[in-house]
Amino acid sequence: MAKPICYSTKAFSTTSATTPLGATTIERRTPGATDIQIQIQYCGVCHSDLHFARNEWGFTQYPAVPGHEIVGRVTAVGNGVTKFKVGDTVGVGCLVDSCRTCPDCRAGLEQFCAGMVMTYGSMDRHLSAPTLGGYAQSIVVTEGFVLRIPANLNLAAAAPLLCAGITTYSPLKHWQVGPGQKVGIVGLGGLGHMGVKFAKAFGAHVVLFTTSPGKVADGHRLGAHEVVVSTDAAQMAAQAGSFDFILDAVSATHDLNAYLNLLKRDGNLVLVGAPEKPLPVAAFPLLMRRRSLSGSLIGGLPETQEMLDFCGQHNITSDVEMIRMDQINGAYERMLKSDVKNRVVIDRATLP
Amino acid sequence: MAKPICYSTKAFSTTSATTPLGATTIERRTPGATDIQIQIQYCGVCHSDLHFARNEWGFTQYPAVPGHEIVGRVTAVGNGVTKFKVGDTVGVGCLVDSCRTCPDCRAGLEQFCAGMVMTYGSMDRHLSAPTLGGYAQSIVVTEGFVLRIPANLNLAAAAPLLCAGITTYSPLKHWQVGPGQKVGIVGLGGLGHMGVKFAKAFGAHVVLFTTSPGKVADGHRLGAHEVVVSTDAAQMAAQAGSFDFILDAVSATHDLNAYLNLLKRDGNLVLVGAPEKPLPVAAFPLLMRRRSLSGSLIGGLPETQEMLDFCGQHNITSDVEMIRMDQINGAYERMLKSDVKNRVVIDRATLP
Repeated sequence: MAKPICYSTKAFSTTSATTPLGATTIERRTPGATDIQIQIQYCGVCHSDLHFARNEWGFTQYPAVPGHEIVGRVTAVGNGVTKFKVGDTVGVGCLVDSCRTCPDCRAGLEQFCAGMVMTYGSMDRHLSAPTLGGYAQSIVVTEGFVLRIPANLNLAAAAPLLCAGITTYSPLKHWQVGPGQKVGIVGLGGLGHMGVKFAKAFGAHVVLFTTSPGKVADGHRLGAHEVVVSTDAAQMAAQAGSFDFILDAVSATHDLNAYLNLLKRDGNLVLVGAPEKPLPVAAFPLLMRRRSLSGSLIGGLPETQEMLDFCGQHNITSDVEMIRMDQINGAYERMLKSDVKNRVVIDRATLP
Repeated sequence: MAKPICYSTKAFSTTSATTPLGATTIERRTPGATDIQIQIQYCGVCHSDLHFARNEWGFTQYPAVPGHEIVGRVTAVGNGVTKFKVGDTVGVGCLVDSCRTCPDCRAGLEQFCAGMVMTYGSMDRHLSAPTLGGYAQSIVVTEGFVLRIPANLNLAAAAPLLCAGITTYSPLKHWQVGPGQKVGIVGLGGLGHMGVKFAKAFGAHVVLFTTSPGKVADGHRLGAHEVVVSTDAAQMAAQAGSFDFILDAVSATHDLNAYLNLLKRDGNLVLVGAPEKPLPVAAFPLLMRRRSLSGSLIGGLPETQEMLDFCGQHNITSDVEMIRMDQINGAYERMLKSDVKNRVVIDRATLP
């Protein structure tokens, strides 16, 4: 494929694992027949952005532009586009393309496609260069990977739905969480607070687990029916064997067996965070009640649209803290110190 | 409950964790209204027997009589018994009673009942003493925990179905293994060889994993379509991402992540062995394909009867090696050295 004609757009990038992010100009392809050009309005800040910017996964190529919780307005569409028009409010999440032919793609589970193209850090098939994310003025994405944002949602607060939202919605749907069930959410961060909102909206009895006594009131405010301080052995023991489902949104090393023992027979503990090191799992908690430990990864495009529509119907958005683009390096430091209560969202209008 | 009238029966017991098993006489209750008295003919030897005899789980009370793969003939029935008569060929597995009222019992999943009574090492409600297992001339068990053995099965070879059989049958049924699926069985021992037979009978494509190149021919003879030597990295790599289901029957420490990576999207790795120490589980193999790691524990009474009936219809039994009762201590030593190819079964007629 010949390299398409490109245009320049402002962005924030980093040139090495140890360099702060700063203003730059990047190239985007001009929209092809099935492409959508989006003027980005807000971009959520995911912990993955930080891992990627600092090459903590080992595959970052520089200059690198993070950002995969993107919302904005359509500014141009290719002549083959049927689903969107200029002026529409749209979103882009962690994926911008996939092979579209494998069983995973055909099942609408593009996140598992071996040929999936991530919004940042994958090889861009059009430009033969790494894909560049949403810390930018605009982005061009093929129509099938663009999502419609319900009009009633606050746009900045909707941005984190594109990653934190779908990451928690998908497993709660896949394992059929609903009324009559007791559901645990482990960790009150960007993912966990969305997990509480969705599990509650699905009609479950929701118990939030946090290591921070200072977050108990936040948990109740978000809608949790109970908040358990997980460092309190008596509080944990009181919950033994009582959960149908637990969504574990903690990326740090922690004791999975303590949570497995809270499950009922046939209960499921699902990881959506990815602790760096393997965690020790004892066989007995699994065997004795036929419990399961599973993992879940964002969600496919059809389910992401379903999640956004569900959020529109139930008026669900993320709790957010707005920052200027030039505050991003400080925000990363605060995230590392767990000094960020709500999801950080960049106002693109502040891009220098 | 007053202690019932008892009778004496010959058995093989041990009096401490370090004492060899030897001949003794034990008491059994005379059959009550709903009880079945069974003259034991054969008793399979499970690795659990060894753990229990040597107090490796820490709860053994002495004198201890192992044995929970029991087959024999009914010699007496209580006047309230409706399902069995004198002369019937019957079996008893790992359980001899449960609370019968909890949700697990009502679901026919007595193995998960908090009040379940194991065939050996639990508190016997009638005698207020530990239950004593099947290394004995006879046993008395309440009707609901006695199973019918199909007449066409070789009785000695049917004994291991009561533990090794149901332990592998139950997860293969629960996770709906069947035609069109690729199923792995890890480990070719008492459990694994039954797993191969059942998975094949259910119509799956069966791949046996063994660390022993010397067991490849055995695997094919048992019916495995493929046998993979798991220490051969190239053979393992060739199987990546291709399994719907893997039954892991290994009790020793081993690398679960290597097997998780062999699963397809939504595949399940189920442990039926119980490694002593927690095993490290990496989050990425679970997340990247929405895989699950689960445990399964024997099976309930209705499913155990279903399994026995299935074995009758498909003429499935265990491959066995017969021993005399006084060979049991040597058999334990050989089991520890993995010097036992087939399931060891004691011929009760040799009880001194």
